[in-house]
Parts: sequence; C-alpha cells; structure tokens
Amino acid sequence: MPDLPLLDEVLAGRRRALARLITLIESSRPDHRTQAEAMLDQLSPHTGGAIRVGISGVPGVGKSSFIESIGLYLIEQGHKVAVLAVDPSSRRTGGSILGDKTRMEHLARNEGAFIRPSPSGGTLGGVARRTAESILAVEAAGYDVVIIETVGVGQSETAVADMSDVFLLLLQPGAGDDLQGIKKGIVELADLIVVNKADGDLANAATRAVADYRAALHLLRPASKHWSPPVLAASAATGMGLPEVWQKIGAYAETMKREGLWQTRREEQAVGRLWAEVTDALVSDLKAAPKVGAELPGLLGDVRSGRLSPTGAARRLIAAFRG
Amino acid sequence: MPDLPLLDEVLAGRRRALARLITLIESSRPDHRTQAEAMLDQLSPHTGGAIRVGISGVPGVGKSSFIESIGLYLIEQGHKVAVLAVDPSSRRTGGSILGDKTRMEHLARNEGAFIRPSPSGGTLGGVARRTAESILAVEAAGYDVVIIETVGVGQSETAVADMSDVFLLLLQPGAGDDLQGIKKGIVELADLIVVNKADGDLANAATRAVADYRAALHLLRPASKHWSPPVLAASAATGMGLPEVWQKIGAYAETMKREGLWQTRREEQAVGRLWAEVTDALVSDLKAAPKVGAELPGLLGDVRSGRLSPTGAARRLIAAFRG
Repeated sequence: MPDLPLLDEVLAGRRRALARLITLIESSRPDHRTQAEAMLDQLSPHTGGAIRVGISGVPGVGKSSFIESIGLYLIEQGHKVAVLAVDPSSRRTGGSILGDKTRMEHLARNEGAFIRPSPSGGTLGGVARRTAESILAVEAAGYDVVIIETVGVGQSETAVADMSDVFLLLLQPGAGDDLQGIKKGIVELADLIVVNKADGDLANAATRAVADYRAALHLLRPASKHWSPPVLAASAATGMGLPEVWQKIGAYAETMKREGLWQTRREEQAVGRLWAEVTDALVSDLKAAPKVGAELPGLLGDVRSGRLSPTGAARRLIAAFRG
Repeated sequence: MPDLPLLDEVLAGRRRALARLITLIESSRPDHRTQAEAMLDQLSPHTGGAIRVGISGVPGVGKSSFIESIGLYLIEQGHKVAVLAVDPSSRRTGGSILGDKTRMEHLARNEGAFIRPSPSGGTLGGVARRTAESILAVEAAGYDVVIIETVGVGQSETAVADMSDVFLLLLQPGAGDDLQGIKKGIVELADLIVVNKADGDLANAATRAVADYRAALHLLRPASKHWSPPVLAASAATGMGLPEVWQKIGAYAETMKREGLWQTRREEQAVGRLWAEVTDALVSDLKAAPKVGAELPGLLGDVRSGRLSPTGAARRLIAAFRG
C-alpha cells in the first residue's frame, strides 16, 4: 500500500519526506521495494518535468565544485536543483554522507537544493535503477533541474547517459598528454563539453584546450543532423562561463524538443531499462538454479580454454536450467 | 553425429568441405545446428591458430579492394587468407554471392583464399554467432589469417570487434568535413587506422588526413598502457603501405601476446558470447510465452508514456512469464 500522507508531503516538496521515499526506493527489503513501486506509480503523473543533466569527468577535474557553483547559479535563477549520483563503489556510511554534504557545503545548506549521495554498493545495474527511480521522486517533489553525477570510472557514464536528457563532460585544461585521462567512448557520449578551471594560471591553457577539442571533435565526430556538441570554458571558482553552459543546455533541449527527439530519447531510455531489468531477473534465476551452479565453473573453464564453443556451453546451461 | 569424413576433409583444407560445414553452421534447421555444434566440438583442438582481423569502414572507402589487395599480398607471403563478413542486412541470393565473388575477383580465384559472404538475414546476434563459428571452421581448415568484414553501419562493428584480435578502421582521405562519415564510437574501437586511396590526386589529401587523425587521436584517446593505435596511409590500387599495415598488425599481436592480453581478449570474447547466447535464449523464451505476448504491447505503451515505471513493468512481465 502506498503511504498516502508521505506521498502528499513529497508532492508538497518536503525534503524530509522525499528523503524517506528515496530510502524506500534504495532499500533491498522486498516490502520496501513493493511500497516504493506503488508510490512511484502514484507519483508518475507528477514526474518528467525536470531537465535531467548527467555530468561526468575524471577525479580531480573539479566536478563537485562545478556542480555546487552551477547549482547555486541555477537556484539564483529561480530553479530547484536536485543532485543525485551513480557510484557503484560507494558504501553508505555516516562518513560518506557527511563527505558528500561537505564537499558541496553551500549547495547542501541551500533551501533550493536537494543532495543525495549514490545508493550504496550492489551492481551498477542495481545502483542505476535506484537512481533512475530517485529522479522520478525528486521530479514529483518539484525539482526542475536534476543533476546526475557519475564517478567517471567504469561503466557508470553509460548508465548515467542512459538516464539523462543531456550529458555533460567536464575536462581539465592542459596541453596534449594532460588531456588523456578520458575514458574510451566517453567523449562520444557527450552532448556538451566543458573545460573547467578556466581561471588564474590555467586560463590560457583552458582556452587552448577548448580550441584543441573543437578541432578534434570536428574531425572525429559524426556531424549530427541536429546537434554538434559545443566545447565551452568555465570556472567553478569565479563563475565564469556558467550562464553560457546553462544557455547551451537550454539550446540543446529546445533543439531536441523541436525535432521530436526529447521525448523519443526518454521513451527509449524507459524501454531499455524495462528490458535490462527483465534480462537481469531472468539471468539471476538461471544463476540461482542449483544445477546451473554445479555446471557453470566447468563450462566457463572449457569455453575459456576453447575446448567448448560458447554456443555449446550456452545450450548446456539452458538445459541445466530447464532441468 | 558429426560427419567424420567431412571433418577429415575440412582438416585437410578442402574448400568444398569447408563450404559445406559453414552451410551447416549457417542453417537454421535444428538437426543442422546440432550437427554443426558436434563438428565444431570435434574441431576445437585445431582452432585458434589464425590472426583474426576485423575491418570496418563506411561504404565507398574501398573496403573490398583493400581486402583484395592485402589478401593477395598476404598469400604472396605464404599465408592462407579467409574472408568472412557480418552484414545483418544481407539476403543470400545467387546474385549476392556472385556479387561478393566478383567484387574481389582476383582474390576469389586464388587457391590461397577462401571468401564467404555474410550469413543472410536474421538478427545481428544470430549473424554474428554464425560468423564467429565460421572463424573456427576456417581456422580448422588451415587459414592463418581471417579477415572479418563489417558493413560499417548499425551495430555490426561492435559485433566484429568482439570476434577480432585486432580491429582495423579504414578511412577516406579528404579534409575536414569529408571525414565526418564515421560512426560514433567506432574510432574508439580501432586498434589501427588506415587512410586508404593514398594515391594519385588523393595522395596529398591522404597525408594530411593521416596527420589530422594522429593529432586528434592523441588528444581524444586515452593512452593505452600498451598500445597507441597508429594511423597509416595505404593504397589498395598501388599496393603502397600494405606491408606496413601488416607489419603493424604483427607488432600489435606481439605486444598483446607479450602482455598476456591476446589470450585474455579471446577468453573474454568467448565468455561474452556464452552469456549473450544464454540471455538471448532466456529472453526468447519469455517473449514466446502467450501471457507475455498478451501483456507486452500494453506494458510497453505504459512505460513509454510514463504511466508505469520500467521496474513495475518488468515485474509484471516476469510474473506473466512464470504464469
């Protein structure tokens, strides 16, 4: 049964109620899961109204201070800003919550912001699903900008891109080899590239980096019919460039909506998550079958050594599963 | 039961026997599939000896003539060369087989070469699985270089990269905007980039393209600890650069083997195919269940419109499947 008073409080934008709902969403207790799903179904007419901005960048690029600065800027402009995260490596402890709040201290204290650290532990798929549901919860609570942060390692970028309307990649200024920390394929996911720390001693390096990236993107990326990812410089420290970043995000949203691609992307994301969850459930069932558990290590060894074809091994696993 | 005389003939390198085996591999008849699997299990000690080279590039880049020229060059060097293809859009007709043979006329007539068009129709997964099995068949028949060609559209590049030891991307010479036909993420898959048509009027443009791509890769790609994808110019028409391309492929193989990554990549590919086939089989089962078929269209509509969460819809599909 959905908790109706809690729902009303979420819809009224009470942060404490929102935090409780997200705790239910993140719980692994089956009764909590059932309750969370029932509540999300009730809330669904009130979801979808935010712009969902995924933000990625390698550690050290200044992601936290960038999110804090643009978050405060957006609140000044009258927005309500929620910050979520996808970090499959995180362990929820008193310390890490505190860490999350202190690293965005001013934003965390602001009434217009809601900051939630990553759901803890588990598989990337599980963490991502819970964050995707939390997006719906914060939207129902009236937040109209949702920033979803990724740790910039592993597969978490793809997961975050799959739940964002627009995916922003933060880069460091610096010449040539200094720029190489970026993971394979991440540049290709970006709808917008921002060279952060464009201030002080690094201002010139940032300007050069912007030019280099523009040239490289021009060569390497297919010209989308509708959007070429812009490269901008910004500084979380001085606030320089933040209005331009937000303006580009707005231009992206406008273009996608005009072309009918905004809603399409969301629909594809939702259908993709449906199949990912169905597949996860089916494969979990298979792996949990005692006969599969008994055969799997031997079959994997045979496939690795080439003694058995993947097709043959798959057939045996399915046979073991069906009993 | 495996056809033992056929097996012996394949191992003796008879092309007609090899073609018959691949026909069994590509067949959708269950008895053929069973026979093909039994034969592949018998052949497995004789597989794995080739270097598997995936080649991709947009239509018009000169892929066929490049494969023909480098194939003839390799045969001159004493190699036996098999050419396979992954093209989920292909329809096997007399015409297209003929087309495939005529577009590589000299190679097709050479005793040292074996050319097989893509398995026809079906899903990309199905086409890719059959091509991956055909790689084992041609290896058992003594071919020590296997070229797997992709059509350069859709998801076929990833599928080919997943069955190749080394993935080569062919590009066109040309400045700036002319280079933009490359698909998202494909450059990231490449272990080696070759600018083709570096001859005649295009020679200068090819040199510039090589320099541009080197600069762009230097910026955009993470430095692998062990390998930075080289960019080379070549001409299928004059043969210029083909020895260097083969030399780089050899250097790549040597580096990967020295680092222990060659075998690791193959093992991961095989295990990945195992799980892909298991997942395909499980999802097919689910989709074939009458109750699932009855509920699916409505659930998909509700997920697209946001009336139902992907999690909720997944739960209902699984419930319908389990009856």
